[in-house]
Amino acid sequence: MTITLYDLAGAEADRRFSPFCWRIRMALAHKELPTEALPWRFTEKETLAPTGQGRVPVIVDKGKWVNDSWVIANYLEDAYPERPSLFGGSAGRAVTRFVQGWTDTVVHLGLIRSVVLDIWQYADEKDKAYFRKSREERFGGATLEAVQSGREERLPAFRQSLMPLRNMLEAQPFIGGDKPLYADYIVFGAFQWVRCISPFKFIERDDPVYAWRERMLDLFGGLARKSKGYPV
Amino acid sequence: MTITLYDLAGAEADRRFSPFCWRIRMALAHKELPTEALPWRFTEKETLAPTGQGRVPVIVDKGKWVNDSWVIANYLEDAYPERPSLFGGSAGRAVTRFVQGWTDTVVHLGLIRSVVLDIWQYADEKDKAYFRKSREERFGGATLEAVQSGREERLPAFRQSLMPLRNMLEAQPFIGGDKPLYADYIVFGAFQWVRCISPFKFIERDDPVYAWRERMLDLFGGLARKSKGYPV
Repeated sequence: MTITLYDLAGAEADRRFSPFCWRIRMALAHKELPTEALPWRFTEKETLAPTGQGRVPVIVDKGKWVNDSWVIANYLEDAYPERPSLFGGSAGRAVTRFVQGWTDTVVHLGLIRSVVLDIWQYADEKDKAYFRKSREERFGGATLEAVQSGREERLPAFRQSLMPLRNMLEAQPFIGGDKPLYADYIVFGAFQWVRCISPFKFIERDDPVYAWRERMLDLFGGLARKSKGYPV
Repeated sequence: MTITLYDLAGAEADRRFSPFCWRIRMALAHKELPTEALPWRFTEKETLAPTGQGRVPVIVDKGKWVNDSWVIANYLEDAYPERPSLFGGSAGRAVTRFVQGWTDTVVHLGLIRSVVLDIWQYADEKDKAYFRKSREERFGGATLEAVQSGREERLPAFRQSLMPLRNMLEAQPFIGGDKPLYADYIVFGAFQWVRCISPFKFIERDDPVYAWRERMLDLFGGLARKSKGYPV
């Protein structure tokens, strides 16, 4: 039975650029669960009404609606225990929560300022006013143009902030060890997000993080690489 | 059979202030392994000759010498599989490596500048010249006094850098989930390090990181809390 994923899209239905949805796209592929990833736009709040909130990712599995990427990943792990594990047990699941904390507070915050205007440019026409207003409020009233400007100057600090990942990659090819786990999808979602909507090069080719991202792009028959975005 | 741990000490034999040794002190207690933690000073390189290198932690278990905190933790996990697990399986072990990457590159780097003179003050007399020379070289020739100065100004950035931990603590009491695992000891070692040699208050009392550290200080009958240091 196919699982439905409501997946953030831009004006082009096949440009999918939510880092949180990418976590779940990869998790569903990891679990080998047939998925229909439907395009969803920021302002289509009513579509998600059964979840009592208005953000994606949302999945519908056998009539059950589940929202919030962490909750969805846990739902998939527990509902499909016979499929490849996303966490490798309760300790893996707990420590993965730390990786999520790092991604949400360091990687996402480090990237959002540098792509927020790019996102707006790819957003669906009906979403553009909503997106601009909500994001400009979040940035204290600065325009998206002002927020994004200066990304070249911010790049060294962003690259520096990836030290924990780089340090770990000296020892193993994935956060999950020899093979990727949900912890990898959490971090990868951030890079796939910006790859889908920005031509800006955040990672240098000789960075071990680049090689890790290449491995991630190759997973599941190139699921992420084939998705509409910029070459990296 | 008692495991011997060579444990960095200052002029006072009971002042133990290596973050890496604290990882292993806690890991040994977690594994419920009787331990003799012998004081060791920076310049006692010859003591560690069987390991072919000159840094602690080093353990000796049934005549086997093991060095490097990560290698020791893995040795203990594999040599004593019937004891409480430090990693909770291979996935937990792999993802813990990321926590170590974060601790080594963010937390330690954020702390060392602000305690390097404090360390020197507590170092054994015979270690002081070695410590000053090696650390001043590491800081590009600046004096320890110059390196440490300005820590008040650096404090907001340091506290900000703990966001990943704080974010995770909203969801669970330990990095290991409901109970601490080696991932917790890795991060805790950094805080115990500075607690042992510096009166400087790095964490505010209303910070969730403070409450987590309190829980860590209480473990194993207050092993870390009872160790010579500053009240926190």
